[in-house]
This record gives sequence, structure tokens and C-alpha cells, in this order.
Amino acid sequence: MPILDELRERLPDDCIQDDVDVVATYSQDRAIFERPGTAAVLVMPRSTAEVVATVEAAAAADAPVVARGAGSGLTGAANAVDGCVILSLHRMDEIVAIDTTNRMARVQPGVINADLKAAVAPHGLAYPPDPASFEMSSIGGNVATNAGGLCCVKYGVTRDFVIGLEVVLASGEVMRTGRHTLKSTTGLDLTGLFVGSEGVLGIITEVTVKLVPTPAAPSTMVASFDDLPSVGTAIAEVFAAGHEPSVMEVIDRESLRHVEAAFRMGLDTDAACLLVVQADGDGATDAITAMADTCTRHGAEVHHTDDPAEGDLLLEARRKVWPALERLGKHLLPEDVAVPRQRLAELLGGIEDIARVHDVAMPTIGHAGDGNLHPVFVLDPDDSDEVARAKDAFEAVIELSLSLGGTIAAEHGVGTLKRAFIHRELDQVQLATQRAVRHALDPDGRLNPGKAL
Amino acid sequence: MPILDELRERLPDDCIQDDVDVVATYSQDRAIFERPGTAAVLVMPRSTAEVVATVEAAAAADAPVVARGAGSGLTGAANAVDGCVILSLHRMDEIVAIDTTNRMARVQPGVINADLKAAVAPHGLAYPPDPASFEMSSIGGNVATNAGGLCCVKYGVTRDFVIGLEVVLASGEVMRTGRHTLKSTTGLDLTGLFVGSEGVLGIITEVTVKLVPTPAAPSTMVASFDDLPSVGTAIAEVFAAGHEPSVMEVIDRESLRHVEAAFRMGLDTDAACLLVVQADGDGATDAITAMADTCTRHGAEVHHTDDPAEGDLLLEARRKVWPALERLGKHLLPEDVAVPRQRLAELLGGIEDIARVHDVAMPTIGHAGDGNLHPVFVLDPDDSDEVARAKDAFEAVIELSLSLGGTIAAEHGVGTLKRAFIHRELDQVQLATQRAVRHALDPDGRLNPGKAL
Repeated sequence: MPILDELRERLPDDCIQDDVDVVATYSQDRAIFERPGTAAVLVMPRSTAEVVATVEAAAAADAPVVARGAGSGLTGAANAVDGCVILSLHRMDEIVAIDTTNRMARVQPGVINADLKAAVAPHGLAYPPDPASFEMSSIGGNVATNAGGLCCVKYGVTRDFVIGLEVVLASGEVMRTGRHTLKSTTGLDLTGLFVGSEGVLGIITEVTVKLVPTPAAPSTMVASFDDLPSVGTAIAEVFAAGHEPSVMEVIDRESLRHVEAAFRMGLDTDAACLLVVQADGDGATDAITAMADTCTRHGAEVHHTDDPAEGDLLLEARRKVWPALERLGKHLLPEDVAVPRQRLAELLGGIEDIARVHDVAMPTIGHAGDGNLHPVFVLDPDDSDEVARAKDAFEAVIELSLSLGGTIAAEHGVGTLKRAFIHRELDQVQLATQRAVRHALDPDGRLNPGKAL
Repeated sequence: MPILDELRERLPDDCIQDDVDVVATYSQDRAIFERPGTAAVLVMPRSTAEVVATVEAAAAADAPVVARGAGSGLTGAANAVDGCVILSLHRMDEIVAIDTTNRMARVQPGVINADLKAAVAPHGLAYPPDPASFEMSSIGGNVATNAGGLCCVKYGVTRDFVIGLEVVLASGEVMRTGRHTLKSTTGLDLTGLFVGSEGVLGIITEVTVKLVPTPAAPSTMVASFDDLPSVGTAIAEVFAAGHEPSVMEVIDRESLRHVEAAFRMGLDTDAACLLVVQADGDGATDAITAMADTCTRHGAEVHHTDDPAEGDLLLEARRKVWPALERLGKHLLPEDVAVPRQRLAELLGGIEDIARVHDVAMPTIGHAGDGNLHPVFVLDPDDSDEVARAKDAFEAVIELSLSLGGTIAAEHGVGTLKRAFIHRELDQVQLATQRAVRHALDPDGRLNPGKAL
């Protein structure tokens, strides 16, 4: 039977949507270079049982299954493939349990990251992972892409917080992985294997995450550097001195100028870049003062404050970059590379060179403390020449990152956007092993084919 | 050809040892219930290339390969199987690189945990995982068993610190996993899959770990409780109040009595248990004072100090339990279970009941903050009746942990000791998936057969 009939046999009508326009809306994420295929149908399950029914229907009709969270991905990982079932988990949005003694929460995959943060806050707890999309992206999508964010420099990425999963496998079987205790060494770690697996190993239907006590209000500093090598040296010295910043963001000159043009914040638009640093916890004031001194010693103009509201204002320039770029009315594609911390200044400088050589607009922001930069391509999609130049620059940034000992995908994943480059980072033995693991879990290649590997 | 000839063709003579007594010495870990098989030969490689040669020789002779670190394991995971090559990695003990800016170290598997700690300390860095065996156990063994320790309650287990590996697969191929940057989302997470895999997926030949800035000297408190429910309530309240102890250890009455009998430390041997808590970082004094108040409120007699030397003395009672038990001249086997924090008092009480019902000596210590207890079986191995009673009690503790929502193996792994119980914690779907992953990596079942799964 065709997939639509198989689904109708197994699921309530209101779970199934085959209106072409609606299906198309759910068929792509935000990776502007990537063209989605044409999905056969959209399924919106309310329960694990309905996910199982969907996977069974897809098996019966020999149709691929592409799971998606909120669609805020940036690599095409959630894009439709031809003839597939798009499985949108947005209705499975229940916070199942919050365990304050063990500092854990159990949630369905459609829970929005910000909603989880809000739900645990009254208990004095926090869920740190904070991708820029945290107000719209879902925990299931965060887990499937191993999402990062601003706080990772101190608190770690999504992987560091996932301790258990419920997963529907390609076979339609339901598997629970992980633990409900703080430690366990029983069997292989399948939980970690699923984090960042981009939907190719199974459909995540429940997530157990670790929580932390709500951090104290941070102290904040902003340093305005005249040249890129100095910011690189200052960052290296900060970490060598043993500091643990909770935020360390960089904004390059071009980004500063866009923010200033859009919002008139009185920023120093002649600076090579702005470094915004926060520290939380009891020693925050001392730590920020010491880090400010380090930046001053390397020629930066520095301002710092213990007032959380003022600190928030200082971070505002970083937060306003994306809105400022959006006002340009063009398409935006953030690149996502990371290098060892000591190579950050070289990466920043190299990105400026690439923008000049390829004649593209590429304002750059990033998580400097992680060595992780996002040059943002600002494009007119109808200008084929500009698009071609941007694609060349995009590849050049990846090559630059690799040449500096870096990664092709720091926190946005591979999807389809970076599949062609994966063999440049992973050796053939590892790629073959990854494929063998994938094949062991999904021998028919039914789950998100053509993605990630 | 026989395995010995295959090895001699590929390796220098001094890597190969077939003296029966020497081979026997390297053929078992410290799991006293478990009988090792008879190994064919011991190989002591000095390089990854020699590990590859060993695996290739084993494949040619169709012999199993059992890798081992320092042999301090407690579950039989490193025990010989009949006809196997014992591959001891103790000669591969180089600290390859320490990267202070990224806070990472790259080490060979034979590096002793304490030596890594000592090597990074002059850089103001620490490698937190601290199994009780840290002065003798190797990083490779720690990774293969996902070792825990005292500091896990704040800093996490070995898994939380491993970011990259070099592994020799059953095929003889060398695979590098993981990253050199602080973040990467390129491909599946094979690194995590190998942590805790007990040698069944590959031979670990290099490990990249994260480091942290050396924690400040801790403040310490000791609380002497009259009853077990009170300690349970106090622990739950400590975590509900948002504290982050860096150590939280419990010592039961029987353990206290053994320590007092052996070392005359003036301990309160009428207490139901002693709770020893440390906090580090800038707010340590306030945190310890607040936690001490919580314990006082629940009827405990409490002493606390900011003096690191005095704090060390207070922890001494915990450290002296094992030496005190060793003086009894019997065999010791520590159990290893963990339950959610709120069930800890029930676990402690249940263990006392089991000791009484089965008439066994079972002094109990553990990482209370993780809900992780180690009842220590104290046995005369020639008393077959006592051994039989202990085996029954051993199973009863596992059943108790499971009934409280706990794990059968908190930080010591499965090995052969707990293989019969693994299906009680992991569902059939997960077990089948774990076996499929293992089969994908080692189709001939050459690596550590009969262990872990």
C-alpha cells in the first residue's frame, strides 16, 4: 500500500497531514544552501506509540522517515528526502518529571529549550545548554544535533547533560538507554551515541537531562581590541591563569558596524573586535577584574561591572548582531567552525582575508572561549554570482579551520551542508566504523537517509 | 600456526612472555569470586604498531585478545579466557602532550592516574577522576571501565573527561575518534561508545582527556548520625538547597568499628554512620557551614573546618576503611550499586538487613552524594559455607538496588561478575542493540569474549 494508506490504517486522522503546502512548510530547516526533497506526508504524533506506528507504516511502504524538532537547524539535517514521511515531534511537548534531589528532568522531545529552563527555574535549577535558538528550538532537536551555545565554555554542550533516552528504532522497537542514577556502568553507552546522531539511528521520544543549581548572577566585562593577535593572546592568558568564564563571546568589526548602524548603541566601530566575558559564582568579581586586567595589558579598552542589569546591556551588542543582519533583508547562513583556543586569532584573521579575497560579506561572531566562530554569510539568493562566491568562501573557511587543527562542524552538525567535507576531518577507518554502527541499527537505511555521514 | 609463533613473527622477543607463572600473574584482576581462564601468552607492547601486530597475530591464530591495564578491576573484566593473548598495556605509559590553553592532555593507556594528576598539577590543572585505585590504576583501564571516585559528585566520572581516543580495532585497523577542539559535532560519537566498553570494542592505545583548573583547598565537615533515615533526609536537603559538595562520603557503623579497632582514631563507634563532606571553590566556607547546619538540624553531631590539613584528617576515617579491612587477613570484595539520592537511606538500611539475614560481614562505605554504596564482603575463601552465604547476599544487594530504581553497576562495570544480572537493568531491545553494535565492530568476537554484555 502507499505510505498514506499505511499511515491511515495505524494513526488517528488528525496526526496525518498531506496538504502539499503544509507538508512543504515542515520539509526544511534553515540551511539556505540546501534544497529539501519532496516529502510524501507529514505525521504529527502525540505519543511514543504513534511514533512506533509511523515507523511501522514507513517500513510497510518502504518509505524513508525524517524526524524533525522545531526546524531551526542550520545544516539541512531535518530537510525532507523524496517520498519520505516527515515526523514532526512538536506535539510531544510534555515535561514528564523534575527530580530536584537528583537534579534531573525527563522531557518529551518537543519541549522547547526555553520552556524547560523556565520550568526548572522555580526549583533553583538550570538547564545550561543555550543555543542561540533556545527560545524556539526543541530539546529533541538539541539532542539530535548536540547543540552548543554561549554557556558551553563553562558548562559544556548538550551531550554533557543527556543521561538517558527513549528511542524508537528503525525496527519499530522502543529502547530505553541510560540511567536514573547519577552513575552507572552497566553495558555500552548508547545514550551518547544518539546525541548528535541527526536522526539516523532512531527517533528520540524522551530525554532525561542533568540539571545544575542556578548560577549566581554574573559579573561582566567588555574589551575593545585594536588588533586580532592581541585578543588571541589575551584569551590564551585568561585560560592559562586558571579562569573559568561562563561566557566569552567575540564580535568582529563588521558585525559591530552592522549593530551600530541598526541600533545606535555607541559601539567603538573602529575596534578590530569586541570581547564580552562573564563569570558567575562566588569569585566572579575577582575573576572579571583579573580578566579585565589581562585585556588591558594587551592594549584593549575595557569596561567591567558587577551589576547584572548593566552586564546584560553589555552582552546586548552580541545579541543584536543577528537582528541587525536580518534587517539587511538578505539571506543569512552562519558558518560553524572551531579551532584550538590558541589558534583563534589566526582563524579570525583568516576569515577577514577570505571575505576580502572572495568579495563576500561575512561578519563574524562566535564563542571565543571555545575557539568556535560563526562567520555569517549575508546573501542575495537571486544573485547567482554572489552565491557562487559565498560557496567558495564557505569552503575556504572549512579548509582554514582544518589547517588550524580545527573541526568542520563545531555545534551545528553536518546534515547535508557539510557531508562532502566529513572525510576531511574523520579518517576512513572511523567513517567505515560509523557506517557499520549505523547499518547495525538501521540495516535498510530508512532513517534520515543521505544525512550526517 | 599457533599463537606463539604468529606473535614471534611479528614482535620483538622481549614483548612476548610465555612463562606460565608470569602469564598467570597477568591473567586476573581483583574480582575474588571470578576464576580466570588459562591464557596462552602475555604480550607487552611498547607502541600502537605492536598492538596492531598482536591483534593481527591473534586473528591469524584465531585466538581471543584480552586487554588489561593495571589489573585493579573488580569484576573480572580483565581476566584471561582460555587460549587468549593477554595484552598488557603497562609499557605504553607516556604522557604525550599537555595543552594548558585548551586544558587537555594526551596520554598513552598505561599512564597511572596519579602520575597524570602529578604531571598536570604544576600547570595549575587537575584531572579529577579519582577511583580509590588512583595510585595504581591506569588511564586506559579507567576509560575501559568508566571509573568513578570520590570527586564525581561535583566533577563527574571518567566519561565526562574523555574527548578523544586512538583505538586498535579487531580488524587490526587504527581508528582515531573525537576532537582536538573544545566542541565538535562531526559524525557519530564513537569516543563515548568506547568509554566503559571493557575491551570488547577495541584496544585503547591513546586517550585525550579534559582537565580543569586546580580546585581551591576544600572546607570539610564530618557529621555523626544516630539513625539512617536522618542521614538520608539531610542529604536530600543539601542538594535541594543547591549545594555542590566536592566530596560526600558515608561510612557505616561496622566500617567505623573496624577503623577504630585497627587505628584508634577516637571515632564515635555508636553512630549509625558518619558523613564526610567537602566543598571547594570560593564559597566553600559558607557552603560547609550551611550543610553542617542541615546535618545538625537532623540530629547529627557535627564538626567542620576550613583548615585543609584538618580536613584531610577528617577524611582519613574514610580512607582507613579499606586498610582496616585488609588487616583482617580475609578476602575483600566490594559490591557496587547506586540508587537515586532520595533512596540512599533505604539502601543503607536494606544492606544492614541483608547482612543480618544472610549472616555475612558487610561493612559499607560509599559515595553518598552519588547514591553509590560499596558494601564490602569480608570472606574466608576456604569457608565454602561463608562464600555461599556471601554470594546470596551479593545477589540480594543487587535485587535491592534494582527495587529502589538503582543500577547493578555504578562505577566498577560488569565484567563477568555481573553478567548474569545485566538483563535485569537493560531491556531486551537495548541488549540486542548493544550486541549488534559489538558485532559490527568485532564480527568474530575476538576481543574480550564473554565479558560485559
